[in-house]
Amino acid sequence: MATNVLEINAERLWESLERSAEIGRFRDVGLRRLALSAEDKQMRDLFVGWAKQAGCSIEIDRLGNIFARRAGSDPSLPPVAIGSHLDTQICGGRYDGILGVLCGLEVVRSLNDRGLSTRRGIEIICWTNEEGARFSPPMMGSMAFAKVLPLDGVLAITDDAGVTVEQALDQIGYAGPAAVGQRSFDCYLELHIEQAPLLDHEGCDVGIVVGGYRTQALRLTIKGDTGHAGGTPMAMRKNALVGAGYVIAALNDIGLAYAADEGRTTTTRIESFPNLPGTYAEEVKLTLDYRHIDQARFEQMGKEIDKAIADSAKKANVEIDVQQGWSWGSELFAPECIDLLRTTAKELGLPYREMRSQAGHDAYAVATMAPTAMIFTPCFEGISHNVKENIELVRSVPGANLLLNAAVARANR
Amino acid sequence: MATNVLEINAERLWESLERSAEIGRFRDVGLRRLALSAEDKQMRDLFVGWAKQAGCSIEIDRLGNIFARRAGSDPSLPPVAIGSHLDTQICGGRYDGILGVLCGLEVVRSLNDRGLSTRRGIEIICWTNEEGARFSPPMMGSMAFAKVLPLDGVLAITDDAGVTVEQALDQIGYAGPAAVGQRSFDCYLELHIEQAPLLDHEGCDVGIVVGGYRTQALRLTIKGDTGHAGGTPMAMRKNALVGAGYVIAALNDIGLAYAADEGRTTTTRIESFPNLPGTYAEEVKLTLDYRHIDQARFEQMGKEIDKAIADSAKKANVEIDVQQGWSWGSELFAPECIDLLRTTAKELGLPYREMRSQAGHDAYAVATMAPTAMIFTPCFEGISHNVKENIELVRSVPGANLLLNAAVARANR
Repeated sequence: MATNVLEINAERLWESLERSAEIGRFRDVGLRRLALSAEDKQMRDLFVGWAKQAGCSIEIDRLGNIFARRAGSDPSLPPVAIGSHLDTQICGGRYDGILGVLCGLEVVRSLNDRGLSTRRGIEIICWTNEEGARFSPPMMGSMAFAKVLPLDGVLAITDDAGVTVEQALDQIGYAGPAAVGQRSFDCYLELHIEQAPLLDHEGCDVGIVVGGYRTQALRLTIKGDTGHAGGTPMAMRKNALVGAGYVIAALNDIGLAYAADEGRTTTTRIESFPNLPGTYAEEVKLTLDYRHIDQARFEQMGKEIDKAIADSAKKANVEIDVQQGWSWGSELFAPECIDLLRTTAKELGLPYREMRSQAGHDAYAVATMAPTAMIFTPCFEGISHNVKENIELVRSVPGANLLLNAAVARANR
Repeated sequence: MATNVLEINAERLWESLERSAEIGRFRDVGLRRLALSAEDKQMRDLFVGWAKQAGCSIEIDRLGNIFARRAGSDPSLPPVAIGSHLDTQICGGRYDGILGVLCGLEVVRSLNDRGLSTRRGIEIICWTNEEGARFSPPMMGSMAFAKVLPLDGVLAITDDAGVTVEQALDQIGYAGPAAVGQRSFDCYLELHIEQAPLLDHEGCDVGIVVGGYRTQALRLTIKGDTGHAGGTPMAMRKNALVGAGYVIAALNDIGLAYAADEGRTTTTRIESFPNLPGTYAEEVKLTLDYRHIDQARFEQMGKEIDKAIADSAKKANVEIDVQQGWSWGSELFAPECIDLLRTTAKELGLPYREMRSQAGHDAYAVATMAPTAMIFTPCFEGISHNVKENIELVRSVPGANLLLNAAVARANR
């Protein structure tokens, strides 16, 4: 490494990760720390305390997004933002989101260690409800911040118990005074575990994310008519769950057919009514998504899925209404930020690979209002959204050092 | 008709049906009158009032089963029992169960009209929770009465809100003082709408039920592992919902293949976990059943279903645990009671067809402790467990008259 290169304190980063992994522990090794829950509050409090100890000023907006700022020498300039999330899936791991936030904290701590100031400030961001496990949709905090979603609508969203986002924020005391979205950033950088096995399998420790998989979610409402499971002849039935079964099976078959060149298809959610013994289904709602790295292949998948849905409807004698859900494109990030990461990695002598993200991230929404890029670090076998999610410190430190040096370079420009 | 033949008062029967159809009205023409709900209480109160007006004594057992007895001239003899249920499905019709109870009431009223006494008493029974729409399993009241299910277990069953059967009985005041199952019957007769289209399509008004479809329910637990919907390569996934989709599709295909000779297959219930956007399923539970009129074909269906489940597990890379659920055989009822119905129908000059029941009924459990038979009456297009369930009075009266005359013949024997 060049002599002017900064390094994070790996041991301290790991200690912070271990401490954070105590809050919301689930099934021995994982976490269940749902957005705006008591556990989320505990983790937020811990982070705010750490950030204050590191000399940061704290602002919290109406949606509970937390902004911890290390001031720069020129307060007139917008800060370099580094963010991710502290909430987890319902059977989540210890690193998804959390590693990115704590690497942001480690950037600040490392600058403090050396008494270094930067021209622009450094702002660590914890976005509210990235996972969408309690309140849907995911990435709610960053999307409202970037005006991709309207704030009023987001505050009114309810969890399964009927609690609104607004009520949940009040309950944990994280409805802050700052207006949502009234901040600008010099740039936004997010470090995240890859959540796929490419880096792990290739033995490469740093991914520079140059874009996303083309991704489209669909919400299907399958409309049949309920009836008696015993009495109604098969030919008379309009069984919505049968329509759903054909769709789920066909969608997976399409995903398998595109698996060799990085296609993905998933039915993530099913709701069937009345869902009772003795009757068949009147209505089923499905949430599904498909993803491909290549635009043309993505479009081809879409056509095959449309046909599979139509065929399933015909075969099950039901109607299927298709609504488009969330989607994102392949070109997400700012070339200037991607180049910054490339240049910095080369200066640090860090081997890296360029890659595309298969998952959604807060960075996608932020990218609509600030130059943005992402760093991926390896996770074991690509396992994520699962308690067995795991990382190695030694393979995470290169990405963290890239984040530190890129952020400082950008802040001092 | 022969001159000694009794006839019910059709107009009065219809008025009672219309009145009962006001309680729990749902979607204009249907009913949602779940077991042990406020609506169920209102309907029970109405029935008890009617039965008392008709001179019956009322006993209620610990499970809320109601026994309304018109005394016979020889109180030492067990009564002829006539029963069915007053609860409905969640999107239920106005006649499923209710017609049978009110025809029982009409038997008593018709005897009262003529001042006729019978040697054995006549006992009208309302069984608790036949539908299983709020508390599972269905036919809970009759099964506990016949000791097919243990009473303690039944009282502890909860609805989706966590309310136990015991609590719900207390809430509506129908936890009666009588012990469950401490009664004997001379015989048990149940009249019910067919819930399939055979009588309606053939223009025949009376079905004498000589047995059931061979029926088997299965409870599947599909065990996969959750993961990220975007990141995880298709080949790495153990997606339990994909396993479920393959099972649902294959089960329906088997049903269609057996449809021509009266096979039925249905997946009635699905529960998926975590069932959230961004993740695929760790575990899915399915409840399904299959039915066939012919024992050998039924067994063949079972083998094909076993293979389909194994193939689905393999294709989806998941494990599927199969538990047997409720089942019933084809020989359910007492030849002496079936003969009684045949003989009486002939005496009344009523055209009838013998048939097998595709649905479950309280009569199946009662048949294990008393000679039992059933009468079916037509329902429009066989539509049932649906608000559009409908009957015609003129096509229901022949069955009611058969019930009346058979019950009196048996009571006076």
